Amino acid sequence: MSLLSQSPSQPTLGKPQVSPIPSAAFKRSLDHVAADTEALLDRLLTADPVAGERQRPARLLDAMRYASLGGGKRVRPFLVVETAKLFGVPRRNALMVAAALECVHCYSLVHDDLPAMDNDALRRGRPTVHKAFDEATAILAGDGLLTFAFDVLSRPQVHEDVQIRIQLISALAKAAGVGGMAGGQMLDLAAEGRFGGSPLDFSGVRTLQSMKTGVLLQFACLSGALLGEADRNARVALARYGTAVGEAFQISDDLLDIDGDAATVGKATGKDAAAHKATFVSLLGVDGARERLRKLVVKAERALASFGEDAAILQAAARFIANRRS
Amino acid sequence: MSLLSQSPSQPTLGKPQVSPIPSAAFKRSLDHVAADTEALLDRLLTADPVAGERQRPARLLDAMRYASLGGGKRVRPFLVVETAKLFGVPRRNALMVAAALECVHCYSLVHDDLPAMDNDALRRGRPTVHKAFDEATAILAGDGLLTFAFDVLSRPQVHEDVQIRIQLISALAKAAGVGGMAGGQMLDLAAEGRFGGSPLDFSGVRTLQSMKTGVLLQFACLSGALLGEADRNARVALARYGTAVGEAFQISDDLLDIDGDAATVGKATGKDAAAHKATFVSLLGVDGARERLRKLVVKAERALASFGEDAAILQAAARFIANRRS
Repeated sequence: MSLLSQSPSQPTLGKPQVSPIPSAAFKRSLDHVAADTEALLDRLLTADPVAGERQRPARLLDAMRYASLGGGKRVRPFLVVETAKLFGVPRRNALMVAAALECVHCYSLVHDDLPAMDNDALRRGRPTVHKAFDEATAILAGDGLLTFAFDVLSRPQVHEDVQIRIQLISALAKAAGVGGMAGGQMLDLAAEGRFGGSPLDFSGVRTLQSMKTGVLLQFACLSGALLGEADRNARVALARYGTAVGEAFQISDDLLDIDGDAATVGKATGKDAAAHKATFVSLLGVDGARERLRKLVVKAERALASFGEDAAILQAAARFIANRRS
Repeated sequence: MSLLSQSPSQPTLGKPQVSPIPSAAFKRSLDHVAADTEALLDRLLTADPVAGERQRPARLLDAMRYASLGGGKRVRPFLVVETAKLFGVPRRNALMVAAALECVHCYSLVHDDLPAMDNDALRRGRPTVHKAFDEATAILAGDGLLTFAFDVLSRPQVHEDVQIRIQLISALAKAAGVGGMAGGQMLDLAAEGRFGGSPLDFSGVRTLQSMKTGVLLQFACLSGALLGEADRNARVALARYGTAVGEAFQISDDLLDIDGDAATVGKATGKDAAAHKATFVSLLGVDGARERLRKLVVKAERALASFGEDAAILQAAARFIANRRS
């Protein structure tokens, strides 16, 4: 595999060299997955109803498409496709899971942006759904995307074995629900002091972030193993990778909130400080957060050691996520 | 079966006698299913996380419990349990589907009541979730309940055969999504004239209502057949019954909005007229609507003819739904 020669990312035992530029192969795969996910979502979210549906009302469908198409790095779909590739899973199967997961991710953004939640006007450099449409339509578009994810995962195109589809549905529902992402969003609102209570300590921030952001990234990594019927060791390795990547993702997000600018990041910045919210950065300091980020990248890279050079692109992904500028 | 002697509801070929009082056996079953559904939801929505979850944040769990426990006639669970009984499905299996379906129904009420949607302060005689908690918590509680429904349906307690669980998940996702209930809610907002457009005609109202309310009631009836691996004829019969019951449910709802009082109905009434919204009643008149209701009951009763006296309780349910006072 030629990736190895381009990648400086083999598991290192000493102090890691975190490359600020993702490998060309990684960038190519990310773009390729993004294009394929976009095309699949475009095809799935068509105006034509499928069996079991009556019609797809245009305004709702338009809002669901606006929320899920034409933007986003598609990091989660990339993780699904690349972890599935480790086990020889056909790309078309992995892309179905990627599309379902992206529906869940996009629904969470739509609801998170609502006036009663984060009240954001900008997302991916465009007006948020409730600004482009209206609040009621945004609520329903989020509901529609969340529901659609489970419709997609139930389809035979995901995997011919229904047992595997059930495992994916069960894992996604738990990752997205009260004990996962939705619960994390609740903790996030509480962390703003809306309901009283004291500021979070490090462990509290870690729990909040692992639920709000981490579990969906972990699901992305785990889903490749589920699709590939991987053995226990491989699942544990990918879960460990997913956990490290999830926390790295959030720390880099916190850093972007401090030193990114809205035009590059595509959404409002400086919000955490304005809300006096405890974050990894407020608790560890900028230097401490950067140091933790470096350690997480090493942890993510090491978790993949048993896959050898096949995992070089996923190791590059960990570095990219840690060092992203948007 | 002793139900028959209590029930005046055998399919009649002449003008039907619509009894204003549901049979005692029907009422007993409805109460029994309601109690069992309540107990199961209480057990499922416990504070303890299950495998795959981190923790269940108390405020979110409380709001989800507030939204789904302690109220409601549990008509949908009743339909699941009683249609499943036609095929000898164990009650514990049917109740799992009933609980999942009730989560979807309750989520839709929570989001429907939000200020940006119907802006309702009262539901089942109690403050709506966003009044009892706050708007952000209500949004997340709805999201959590919707997600939880698919978690529940993925569990082995629903049915040992994963193929059947997948069929249920696929059917529920389609019934609840953009081509079903969420789409129907979009059409309902449009029918208020929010986005321009002309008032709905009879066919438009029928489509709206079949999507907003009908499909979930139909899913309830169909799920019994899916659980029971019923043959095609039985599925068609139950689909026909579900369609008639769904429309009857909505017409009786429209009638309650006109002549019910808020204390009995448990939510605000007179809203359709105030919003100048086209409904079955505004298009058919009160007498026309009552006549259509009578015909739908006959249709529902006849659809069940092939099940003989086993279906007497479902026939009583059709009459109850048509004649309900709350």
